[in-house]
Amino acid sequence: MDAHVIDPARPSAVDADRRAPSAELIATLRRRFGSRLSTADSVLLQHGSDESSYRPLPPDVVVYVHGTDEAAFVVRACARERVPVIAFGVGSSIEGHLLAVEGGVCIDFSQMNQVLAIRTSDLTATVQAGVTRSQLNAALSGTGFFFSVDPGADATVGGMVATAASGTNTVRYGTMRDNLLSLTVVTADGEVIRTASHARKSSAGYNLTQLFCGSEGTLGLITEATVRIHPHPEVVAAAVVHFPTVRAAVDGVIESIQLGVPLARAEMLDALTIKAVNAHSRTTLAEKPTLFLEFAGSQAQIDEQAAVVREIAAGHGGGEFQWASLQEERSRLWTPRHHAYFASLQLKPGNRSITTDACVPLSALATCVEETLADIEAHGLLAPVFGHVGDGNFHCLVLVDPDSPKEVEAAEAFSHRLVQRSLRHGGTSTGEHGVGLHKMQYLVEEHGPHAVALMRSIKRALDPHNIFNPGKVVSFA
Amino acid sequence: MDAHVIDPARPSAVDADRRAPSAELIATLRRRFGSRLSTADSVLLQHGSDESSYRPLPPDVVVYVHGTDEAAFVVRACARERVPVIAFGVGSSIEGHLLAVEGGVCIDFSQMNQVLAIRTSDLTATVQAGVTRSQLNAALSGTGFFFSVDPGADATVGGMVATAASGTNTVRYGTMRDNLLSLTVVTADGEVIRTASHARKSSAGYNLTQLFCGSEGTLGLITEATVRIHPHPEVVAAAVVHFPTVRAAVDGVIESIQLGVPLARAEMLDALTIKAVNAHSRTTLAEKPTLFLEFAGSQAQIDEQAAVVREIAAGHGGGEFQWASLQEERSRLWTPRHHAYFASLQLKPGNRSITTDACVPLSALATCVEETLADIEAHGLLAPVFGHVGDGNFHCLVLVDPDSPKEVEAAEAFSHRLVQRSLRHGGTSTGEHGVGLHKMQYLVEEHGPHAVALMRSIKRALDPHNIFNPGKVVSFA
Repeated sequence: MDAHVIDPARPSAVDADRRAPSAELIATLRRRFGSRLSTADSVLLQHGSDESSYRPLPPDVVVYVHGTDEAAFVVRACARERVPVIAFGVGSSIEGHLLAVEGGVCIDFSQMNQVLAIRTSDLTATVQAGVTRSQLNAALSGTGFFFSVDPGADATVGGMVATAASGTNTVRYGTMRDNLLSLTVVTADGEVIRTASHARKSSAGYNLTQLFCGSEGTLGLITEATVRIHPHPEVVAAAVVHFPTVRAAVDGVIESIQLGVPLARAEMLDALTIKAVNAHSRTTLAEKPTLFLEFAGSQAQIDEQAAVVREIAAGHGGGEFQWASLQEERSRLWTPRHHAYFASLQLKPGNRSITTDACVPLSALATCVEETLADIEAHGLLAPVFGHVGDGNFHCLVLVDPDSPKEVEAAEAFSHRLVQRSLRHGGTSTGEHGVGLHKMQYLVEEHGPHAVALMRSIKRALDPHNIFNPGKVVSFA
Repeated sequence: MDAHVIDPARPSAVDADRRAPSAELIATLRRRFGSRLSTADSVLLQHGSDESSYRPLPPDVVVYVHGTDEAAFVVRACARERVPVIAFGVGSSIEGHLLAVEGGVCIDFSQMNQVLAIRTSDLTATVQAGVTRSQLNAALSGTGFFFSVDPGADATVGGMVATAASGTNTVRYGTMRDNLLSLTVVTADGEVIRTASHARKSSAGYNLTQLFCGSEGTLGLITEATVRIHPHPEVVAAAVVHFPTVRAAVDGVIESIQLGVPLARAEMLDALTIKAVNAHSRTTLAEKPTLFLEFAGSQAQIDEQAAVVREIAAGHGGGEFQWASLQEERSRLWTPRHHAYFASLQLKPGNRSITTDACVPLSALATCVEETLADIEAHGLLAPVFGHVGDGNFHCLVLVDPDSPKEVEAAEAFSHRLVQRSLRHGGTSTGEHGVGLHKMQYLVEEHGPHAVALMRSIKRALDPHNIFNPGKVVSFA
């Protein structure tokens, strides 16, 4: 096995590295949390697993916190013994982010899920870290506002902050980074800080908010977040249009963006993904690269935008422009996109997906996807491809039998080549999934040794005893 | 004099703190830079002065660099003697950012001003740090794209990154932070790093880009930046409308934003500023709180947006909606806003301005401005007020005779009360000007002691010998 291929069965954990909590520490936590502490095998297993293809690595203890003060209590208790502390939202991460590679205490935020404030005049909301995006949007129901970040999974806000998540409507509303004003964070010495005021902008000192955003629980525990909310557009409309080639579809989107069309969503599904959806949802879409578009604004704005995009699409050989503006019709039209992930998995029942996350400058996207499709074919892989075209970001779902080391190895080798390709095109190893365990090997290649050394010096300065999610993002030593 | 009042004559410099370069270091630099090194008094004086009311504190040497390699050479040479290194763009900072409080070597970036790449397909441009915003926009002329950040002064991109600048069209296009993809930075050991790839988004490790943005030259030297560029809107239109009260004007803007109107600019001038402009530009505007608005998009979009805003303005007692869409007419209509700063200074010729920079959540803006106007009146100050209403950010130009300690003290005391007021309303001590020397005293109040300690630990980790712009943002010890 090549050095770059990670064995999902043994990510990097060896028993010698474990820093298990003492009986005394567990007793201290039990006194505080009572029945909200668990050491049951099934609970530990659940909290040592994510959506990656890694085998689980359970923590030693799980506690369910209800407030920042409780999270700080856990950190202080663990810091005394230098026991790892790992934050857990809903476990939807896909790069092995939450595996307890050195054991330790997992803090489950799912019960810390209050929406603390909705301020429509400020266009902000403050939530506890365990609030999921659908919980926040339910709380916003009736206010005329919504929270925009939508990574697919119903992730927690805390988790989305930790991985700098994004998703389908980033092209219009930005990533989690762009929608974040301020965080409450527990630091390594168990103190509680607020990273910024609630002003919409500030130049007051180093940007701690953006430092913790994307830090994947390795610099501190994110316990509350103040996020932007957006007014619902007056009208939303959806369109679906297929193209002769991936390049034609990608170019259609880029030209639209260059002309200033504020697309609300712009997703591309490749021919294989459409085939998977047809089989799964009994649809009869042409099995060609297809764009799923969403427009938002007033009726006049949408009509205008759609006219521009329709003309651009036609210029690139696009097929018939299917169109829907009623909610039900829109949902029906977008069904293939919504089902893309599960439909793809059904191409080979019993398989799992090793999911990639390349993101390149827009001008390189078509070439990068073409090269990737050629790679998939050359290596006989089964890998539907779809992506957030407006961001230059696309995912391959490489389907593998998790019990076949050969298939897993071939998928990891493909993932490795894809990262190289993304970097060669001026892109990144991960557009929105994060580093976790899986992408650590690429940090030096992407950023260079000096930038990674600088990241390491930040980690050491903020978490000198390496208690926060150790073994992730950047190595400590 | 109260402890909080800074004496502009003696910011914090005492001779004992100076870390002057040795004759050997100067000789080393002279061998490399020849005539691009200066120790002439006039040059030193210019490089020790900014637009603040501080008296100049000149560096010991000025060098004009032409590339990242030269900046790295200076850093390595200075690091050996632990001599301070201070970056200089055009000297338009206003909080004492570039004063050489401990002496040292000033690196002037004004000759390092090449636009390295314009990539319309990627919607990005890469520039050397010394490129000003007007130079960049001149280079973009004819491409159909523009660089949006406009802080008023024709600052360098490097300077705007260093202070996380913003300005009049932030409400639509975001701050410098939102328009930044990647930086080239010289670190304290003289190494050169790139903070991120050129992908539009990434989750690959700690966000060094945003850490250096707003660090005011205290963590590293920013030598190149890759920024976003935006397609020119099809049509731009301008509107001016006055209101009976500041609150009515502010509420008009906030309601428009809540309804999703994508205002391109939304500036408010108070009655005194209008009075100053009338005197300066021989205009006859009603001397009332007045909004200067800009709309951008297609003609249909603009008509639609303007209709919404017109109705909202009328609902708040707004006066006649003056309107212009031709370039010349627009410029004429916006003249009062463009001349606001110089017109205000002319209210008392020979005076200087001590300029404030409060920024609060939108819901608190009207109250905060009202309280501030009452404060101005109660203390008999002469202080025009205008601001970027859509961001919650406003400036007071407190006019003072710089030779009158009493006037300076009164202005500083006002500035102090305004910062307290901004913080009390959930805002920040500085929305876009930065910390420099002037706002250091408020960091703990704004962020709390633990957050500031964390900032300090970052400073120490990245610049262990405190060579980068020492004595600014956060104290080292």
